[in-house]
Amino acid sequence: MASVNPPRGMRDFLPAEKARRERVLAVIRERYRAHGFDEIETPVVEEYSRLHAGIGGDNEKLAYNVLKRGLDADAVRAAADDPASLTDLGLRYDLTVPLARFYATNRGQLPSVFRSIQIAPVWRAERPQKGRYRQFVQCDIDIIGDGSARAEAELVVATLDTLDALGLEGGSVRINDRRVLDWMLDTFGFGAEERPGVLITIDKLDKIGPEGIVAELRERGATASAVDAFEAFLRRPMTLEYHPYGERQIRKALPADAPDEIVAHLVGIGAAAAAARASAGLATDAGSLSLSKGDDVPLVFDPFLVRGMGYYTGTIFELAHPSVDYSLGGGGRYDGMIGRFLGQDVPAVGFSIGFERIVDLVAEQTDAAAPAVVLVHDRDVSEADLLALKGALVRQGSRVRLEQRTKNLKALLERAASDGYTAFATVAPGTTAATLEVKPLS
Amino acid sequence: MASVNPPRGMRDFLPAEKARRERVLAVIRERYRAHGFDEIETPVVEEYSRLHAGIGGDNEKLAYNVLKRGLDADAVRAAADDPASLTDLGLRYDLTVPLARFYATNRGQLPSVFRSIQIAPVWRAERPQKGRYRQFVQCDIDIIGDGSARAEAELVVATLDTLDALGLEGGSVRINDRRVLDWMLDTFGFGAEERPGVLITIDKLDKIGPEGIVAELRERGATASAVDAFEAFLRRPMTLEYHPYGERQIRKALPADAPDEIVAHLVGIGAAAAAARASAGLATDAGSLSLSKGDDVPLVFDPFLVRGMGYYTGTIFELAHPSVDYSLGGGGRYDGMIGRFLGQDVPAVGFSIGFERIVDLVAEQTDAAAPAVVLVHDRDVSEADLLALKGALVRQGSRVRLEQRTKNLKALLERAASDGYTAFATVAPGTTAATLEVKPLS
Repeated sequence: MASVNPPRGMRDFLPAEKARRERVLAVIRERYRAHGFDEIETPVVEEYSRLHAGIGGDNEKLAYNVLKRGLDADAVRAAADDPASLTDLGLRYDLTVPLARFYATNRGQLPSVFRSIQIAPVWRAERPQKGRYRQFVQCDIDIIGDGSARAEAELVVATLDTLDALGLEGGSVRINDRRVLDWMLDTFGFGAEERPGVLITIDKLDKIGPEGIVAELRERGATASAVDAFEAFLRRPMTLEYHPYGERQIRKALPADAPDEIVAHLVGIGAAAAAARASAGLATDAGSLSLSKGDDVPLVFDPFLVRGMGYYTGTIFELAHPSVDYSLGGGGRYDGMIGRFLGQDVPAVGFSIGFERIVDLVAEQTDAAAPAVVLVHDRDVSEADLLALKGALVRQGSRVRLEQRTKNLKALLERAASDGYTAFATVAPGTTAATLEVKPLS
Repeated sequence: MASVNPPRGMRDFLPAEKARRERVLAVIRERYRAHGFDEIETPVVEEYSRLHAGIGGDNEKLAYNVLKRGLDADAVRAAADDPASLTDLGLRYDLTVPLARFYATNRGQLPSVFRSIQIAPVWRAERPQKGRYRQFVQCDIDIIGDGSARAEAELVVATLDTLDALGLEGGSVRINDRRVLDWMLDTFGFGAEERPGVLITIDKLDKIGPEGIVAELRERGATASAVDAFEAFLRRPMTLEYHPYGERQIRKALPADAPDEIVAHLVGIGAAAAAARASAGLATDAGSLSLSKGDDVPLVFDPFLVRGMGYYTGTIFELAHPSVDYSLGGGGRYDGMIGRFLGQDVPAVGFSIGFERIVDLVAEQTDAAAPAVVLVHDRDVSEADLLALKGALVRQGSRVRLEQRTKNLKALLERAASDGYTAFATVAPGTTAATLEVKPLS
């Protein structure tokens, strides 16, 4: 036991950081709840067979598995050729597999359209690297049982509102539909079997640009005529006007004759989201709702948005913010998956915000509401006097920490300030409520 | 995959129950923070060697262990005679072992007296039974680095205040000291080696009474003269006046000549706790603090309180509440343990409240503060109109859920009410802000 570090790739949270995380979580919870989502919780472990049913994608390989209890030597020996027989449970690697299991278990007690919040840690045995941990918090909202564009709009609106409430105004959502990608690739002439590989390449558009994409596709040996058609489309003489968002802009960003049904779904999301965010209020406008214009909603149609996970079946989105060049979350529609453990199809769409990234962006702030006082006391103050002073301040609504005076008072106060304390007072024998001087911690 | 239940002995939390748990947690967090405790978080898993270092007591045997990643057939075969070699990590079975590891890792960044809050799940592979689960939340506060009676007093005061804030007024704390038990058993004449067994018997006093205790000790073959002395003490002609709490009462409840140091520590806890809870306030009393009497603090000295865990070295306590006949929590001083991974002694004392029991006692309550409205809409209301109405209500501060009208409107509204919704309105095509009628959900 030479090292006393937390397990590899995992973190301790000290008071200041933990307080910050809880503050961010409280805002997220409150905002999502306001938008009609209800928080649920599932156990941290799920049965091995469910975690390895194929819906977890590549993450299944990264699962931490739990050793069966009470294995004897024979059972261990027999497991040499079948390591899976050593385990019956695993730590969840995402919140979607548990949600599918939860829905199958409890659907009789849930509303017909169920809007869930899950905020919880997940575990992946990945190679640790800067900013990537083996235990991290995911923060998902999902709408199960609604196949309409309203569901996507509710997710987008609730997420942007939450980002605003965290002080991260100016977020926007890039949006696309897997069926758009499928149809486009079919139109260009890519065969069904080569499309997954083509999508992996297209996913790099932000990094390697149109020329890079075309070069990589040729290198890959994709159908030459299809690559030519794709290249011609990418080079067509127009600026892609991704924004403002509306039917005209969506059609303009696509090859001719995009399927009406898919375009209508994309348009419907924008219209509903814009209506939800329109500035008219019930209280201020006694007549009918007068909405501000649809381009008010920060939705950006991006026909080349791909997203990695294989399980998406329709809409996909990604959350962007001007302060960073990486995504702050994303999600999409995955109609096939939630019903998997039920043996029936259930429409579902989800949005996962990147909690670990967001918590780093949220500005430091102390709880201005509650004063927090450090009582710095001499060694010989009686226990009863000290606790009487503390008790009185607590009853007044303060947060109070006792600290015995040390030689380096400055260091002591600096640490208290970094833990969110805002004031201090010194206590000597004989200090009473009347003589206690509470001073601000600068 | 025939069953879709959560893993054996573990629970899903549906929206109403999850909301209740989060509400209780928020109160606990806020109160403990006010009393100067700071929340920390450690990873859910710890290294196997640390979880099995002997400080977890019987719980070590109940640990869920995590299978090493990338084991090959040879490694598995070799593990037949050494099953521990299959695992490198385990799920924590308590919050004390992780706290000891956390303190060793981070002590340089912590105040010299560190008051921690930990609220987190633990796992034990116990036989599931009514009210006992394999994953449950523990809720611990600990003070590390203070050996004085003030530390115990701070724990007691913070815990009782938290119970009050949860609406569970009238709680009380039974208190004893392991050194009192040791000294008493020595006084009666029990040998050092037989004392652990004797304590196990004494721990049953509530259940089997003094006669039962004496009979069991004789049956066990405990030193006969010691059992006689113990019996005489139990039968002495006095009513045990455990309360009010003070030196006279403590001495009266013990054999003659109890050690001054231990009695003084017990008396000091009561005096400091009483001072903290005294009704004098800084704001209301400009002169010196005038304290109400010490018997105001609901401390009960119980010389036969034992508590199971072997690691306690001094004070032990147990939290009682008039509404239930089981304990709502407990704790004690364990000076030897926190420094274990550091190789040095560090005084420490902790109090763990039984979150799972407390959450069942806390009265149902809706968030009266925020109105919560269900919008029951016809199928053909446009997505944009519906989200505009929802958006306006959310901006006004309501929580809003959309529900499509079903034949059984009553059932729909009852479910919404059980999820904490307080009002509803019906939305037909053409319903506007002006015509929306929000009615209370009775």
